[in-house]
Amino acid sequence: MTFAATVLTLYPEMFPGPLGVSLAGRALSEGKWALTPVQIRGFSTDKHRTVDDTPAGGGAGMVLRVDVLAAAIDHARELNPAAPVIAMTPRGKPITQARVRDLAAGPGVTILCGRFEGFDERIFKGRDVEEVSVGDIVLSGGEPAAIMLLDACIRLLPGVMGAASSGAEESFEDGLLEYPHYTRPVEWEGRTIPEVLRSGDHAKIAAWRQAKAEDDTRSRRPDLWGRRRDARVQSASGAQQNDEGPGT
Amino acid sequence: MTFAATVLTLYPEMFPGPLGVSLAGRALSEGKWALTPVQIRGFSTDKHRTVDDTPAGGGAGMVLRVDVLAAAIDHARELNPAAPVIAMTPRGKPITQARVRDLAAGPGVTILCGRFEGFDERIFKGRDVEEVSVGDIVLSGGEPAAIMLLDACIRLLPGVMGAASSGAEESFEDGLLEYPHYTRPVEWEGRTIPEVLRSGDHAKIAAWRQAKAEDDTRSRRPDLWGRRRDARVQSASGAQQNDEGPGT
Repeated sequence: MTFAATVLTLYPEMFPGPLGVSLAGRALSEGKWALTPVQIRGFSTDKHRTVDDTPAGGGAGMVLRVDVLAAAIDHARELNPAAPVIAMTPRGKPITQARVRDLAAGPGVTILCGRFEGFDERIFKGRDVEEVSVGDIVLSGGEPAAIMLLDACIRLLPGVMGAASSGAEESFEDGLLEYPHYTRPVEWEGRTIPEVLRSGDHAKIAAWRQAKAEDDTRSRRPDLWGRRRDARVQSASGAQQNDEGPGT
Repeated sequence: MTFAATVLTLYPEMFPGPLGVSLAGRALSEGKWALTPVQIRGFSTDKHRTVDDTPAGGGAGMVLRVDVLAAAIDHARELNPAAPVIAMTPRGKPITQARVRDLAAGPGVTILCGRFEGFDERIFKGRDVEEVSVGDIVLSGGEPAAIMLLDACIRLLPGVMGAASSGAEESFEDGLLEYPHYTRPVEWEGRTIPEVLRSGDHAKIAAWRQAKAEDDTRSRRPDLWGRRRDARVQSASGAQQNDEGPGT
């Protein structure tokens, strides 16, 4: 089964863009994933091919019409019925590496890219669309976010990264940032590679890396650190309940 | 002064990519910003043009060499001495809209894109490089993240968005998600635009939108909501201290 990405956009010429190069580009040409950009404008029903209108209640900018979006999504669901439909929007749930792994293990994804002020809100419940955000910044449209999300999925597809990098020891696995890396030269402008990494003692190296990952997560990302602690407390209390057997 | 972006990358052919289209593309061709992709490999000093080496202490993947990265950054600083140097890395500080506004108001930015396992850690202090993350996911390289960051900056440059969208009423300004949008048709598949937005009562509309922005931020993004509350408490206690005059 090939991971099939459908991108609903007003700028299909933005694709594959950077996804046509390097790791993702090679995987695309080898058929390890497929990409179908779809022009939203094709689902407009008036002669001017209008896709947007002024916001109800007033305000700046234009809003993408719910009927046009629905027709585009219905078309994408015909192409790939089992794929989740995700809209890139700053109002969405922040993307996580766990969600990326879920997506990469599935049949693909349909991504809806907004422009202008955004989507008519009714599309999300009306067509079961998941709102997803990548970073707390505002873009000119969802396309750069879609490219980022697809890149994260594609590298996890079978046979794409190869054996060189398993993806198991990296940031956000186990709720931690990855430990810092060093390589030759051993000394550079008076800065040296930490001694322990040159010791050849694999147990000490593993302990140092784990400690660094924990220290850096705590100091750089107290939010991640707190969520990890909460998850551990929950799982520990869950385990304890299991020890006591099922309740009556 | 033109906003000048320098991108240090092993895949300069990924640029401008989607930034050559639509809003950013038009602004690029009008000279409202400038883009210089620079091939990191050009700063390798050996005959094989090596840029990476195996990680000290062992492990999968390859690490970008600090000496090669330093030479590439030194070159970028000659091109745009006042621009901050930002490395896209999942170990970095999460990007914020406030930081994007800062960048857009400045002389430009130099963005360092990693591939493989990442950068030799010594580059960050050795060359005063800011580590920035966009979303808690792992990419095949920093390029898609760089495109996203640049897109967010470019739309804020003078004359790029025009008067249609001021950028003042959108997500993450005032620490809130933006309120939801609606447009015609008034009824779609039994779902109607909220009555208040059709009332013509501007004060009621503004109050509804503010309440929605607050409700949605609280329910969807407790992290943002908590930070906003903390900032308000701090600013209120700061104002109180000012009322009392300077301490002795």
